[in-house]
Amino acid sequence: MQNFEWNIPTVIEFGKGAIEKLSAMAESGSKALLVYGGGSIKRTGIYDDVMKVMNENGITVFELSGVEPNPRIQTVRKGVDLCKAEGIDMVLAVGGGSSIDCAKVVAAGACYDGDAWDLVLDASKITKCLPVYTVLTMSATGSEMNKNAVISDLTKNEKWGTHSPLFKPRMSILDPTYTFSVPKKHTAAGTADIMSHTFENYFNFEDAALQKTFAEGILKTCIKYGPIAIEEPDNYEARANLMWASTNAINGLIGLGSSCGWSVHPIEHELSAFYDITHGEGLAILTPAWMEAIMKKDPRTITNIAVYGQNVWNLTGNMDTEEGRLTIAQRAVEKTREFFVNSLGIPGSLHEVGIEDEEHFEKMAEKASAQLGGAFVPLSKDEVVEIYRAVK
Amino acid sequence: MQNFEWNIPTVIEFGKGAIEKLSAMAESGSKALLVYGGGSIKRTGIYDDVMKVMNENGITVFELSGVEPNPRIQTVRKGVDLCKAEGIDMVLAVGGGSSIDCAKVVAAGACYDGDAWDLVLDASKITKCLPVYTVLTMSATGSEMNKNAVISDLTKNEKWGTHSPLFKPRMSILDPTYTFSVPKKHTAAGTADIMSHTFENYFNFEDAALQKTFAEGILKTCIKYGPIAIEEPDNYEARANLMWASTNAINGLIGLGSSCGWSVHPIEHELSAFYDITHGEGLAILTPAWMEAIMKKDPRTITNIAVYGQNVWNLTGNMDTEEGRLTIAQRAVEKTREFFVNSLGIPGSLHEVGIEDEEHFEKMAEKASAQLGGAFVPLSKDEVVEIYRAVK
Repeated sequence: MQNFEWNIPTVIEFGKGAIEKLSAMAESGSKALLVYGGGSIKRTGIYDDVMKVMNENGITVFELSGVEPNPRIQTVRKGVDLCKAEGIDMVLAVGGGSSIDCAKVVAAGACYDGDAWDLVLDASKITKCLPVYTVLTMSATGSEMNKNAVISDLTKNEKWGTHSPLFKPRMSILDPTYTFSVPKKHTAAGTADIMSHTFENYFNFEDAALQKTFAEGILKTCIKYGPIAIEEPDNYEARANLMWASTNAINGLIGLGSSCGWSVHPIEHELSAFYDITHGEGLAILTPAWMEAIMKKDPRTITNIAVYGQNVWNLTGNMDTEEGRLTIAQRAVEKTREFFVNSLGIPGSLHEVGIEDEEHFEKMAEKASAQLGGAFVPLSKDEVVEIYRAVK
Repeated sequence: MQNFEWNIPTVIEFGKGAIEKLSAMAESGSKALLVYGGGSIKRTGIYDDVMKVMNENGITVFELSGVEPNPRIQTVRKGVDLCKAEGIDMVLAVGGGSSIDCAKVVAAGACYDGDAWDLVLDASKITKCLPVYTVLTMSATGSEMNKNAVISDLTKNEKWGTHSPLFKPRMSILDPTYTFSVPKKHTAAGTADIMSHTFENYFNFEDAALQKTFAEGILKTCIKYGPIAIEEPDNYEARANLMWASTNAINGLIGLGSSCGWSVHPIEHELSAFYDITHGEGLAILTPAWMEAIMKKDPRTITNIAVYGQNVWNLTGNMDTEEGRLTIAQRAVEKTREFFVNSLGIPGSLHEVGIEDEEHFEKMAEKASAQLGGAFVPLSKDEVVEIYRAVK
């Protein structure tokens, strides 16, 4: 096990009705900037729930709405201007990862004299930040309990991650009923996203055994409750387990002591960037093919994937021989593929999500492989092209 | 899943050499009270490691040594007097749960005008507290990442738990090499203690599925690494996994959303109180008999224990029939008993730890059963007596 630090002071208030705990915001001041995306929080009544708590606690609310799925620096700047003009004390994001990421950079920008884009390009410039609070309405990105934010400037075709310990939310409200209205397609993609975050942390050559059992637990929870949430959107237990799984998949817990670079996310990132497909669907399509590619490249990984098959899919077989391990590993890959396609209903290939050509594969693979140097198994440009082709 | 709050701001610095991170104490002031038990930290060199960091960071150290295995209020009072006389800024515990619990109440007592025993009897009186830091040397109690402390006044035969959000350590140093010198007997008892904390959180009728998978992970980690740490005291991976398992077994994580009262701890507490046996050994002796007792009392629990057998011991069988579940559950109990006795080398019965008579069983059972009202399965006085007799 590598050395690690666990340092997440975020208070999580979990469960139906937890919104009332937002009254704690009064400790941070009396003026809040509410950051959200479209009108869905008004349709679902979440907006009214939030405003009720703000009113009851004497908090004046200013609004930054219309945050994009990939939040833009232009929107961040609007929020920063509002904060500065109105002397705002704290920022409250209501939504998924996009609203939360936007809120984090607004909160830092409000305390910074220059342009907020500086803080995206150079995290070391984030030295002060308004307190951030969040109300989660989508189980996927984990931004509600970590220090990360991703912001885009589409005028320059740039999308960058930034981070600061100051970004960690003071408090996040996780009410599973707030995810009842997430449509089937996004519930499926969100489940695949949670599982992919878990795989990225789970597959490595470190012996951080306890953390691996936690990762297996998250995977088993997704496998059990993802399909239930798709079939029964109002199933509280399913939504609750997925919600808490999503936070724990990416708050650092399961990666403690075994950090290595991510693999499928960089490969998918290029797919989304070039073809604008749904991130979680891209991950689901690529993951089984990536598993096959790494087993071919580095046979040590066959053991990792066989152990995954045993512990997550309850596969049995002979772990003492190379052939036995390979058989279990291959069945584990097949189980994973079947789960995404049959149980979550996610398309199994690129042409099913509208990608018909191979035009950009070389360029995409070049960019992706450049980010895989520190990954579990580094892959060359050609090997990444093979993955794209395998799932065409 | 029940509603829950997760609120543990403690920073964990984990790994060999993590002691250097204690330099962060300088943020809290320049005078520290060092709280520890006997001379073992001097023999192992941990004392020198701590003093080096204190010296390098200009922190003056005052000492409260000789903290008892069940820390006494008299020792707490000595610490409080020292803090007040010297104007101490923070408290640093170096040891296991006893030193840490003592340090917590000293830290609160230093900010309280009355007698520190008031704070043990009435937690609501804890309104201010010096910052608490810890260096862990024993994997078991979890006090390094929670808000609890237990203090005794033997002149009155009293032992009480108290708690405060202010007790949560600012930072805890978890260096697995600091547990290399823990003897076999206490490594075994500590492993049983970790497993018992986990069982207390794991067995319930709630559907907090994710948390149950985490609990299963802790149990599997103990089963794998407990025997290795006993055989090879310097095995870093074994000590590291046990150390992080012990913290996570009782920092709240696995009990989120499914809280119910504890069972085996109250039953063991009376054993230790009347016969002064090692707590972890008492837990190991009682646990399998307790499992049998609850299955007899409430047949719904057969499913819980069968699921435990499947997921932790990889037992297979027919979960669809009552008989099948009972068979798996009975084998799971047997596996548990065999593990404690054969793999950890813990005595399997009370007479093996020197308890020959039944003299106090009635009185002990009466006191224990009074605390089981909110437990997974409440047990009567007679049913608790049966458990004591079953393991005689």
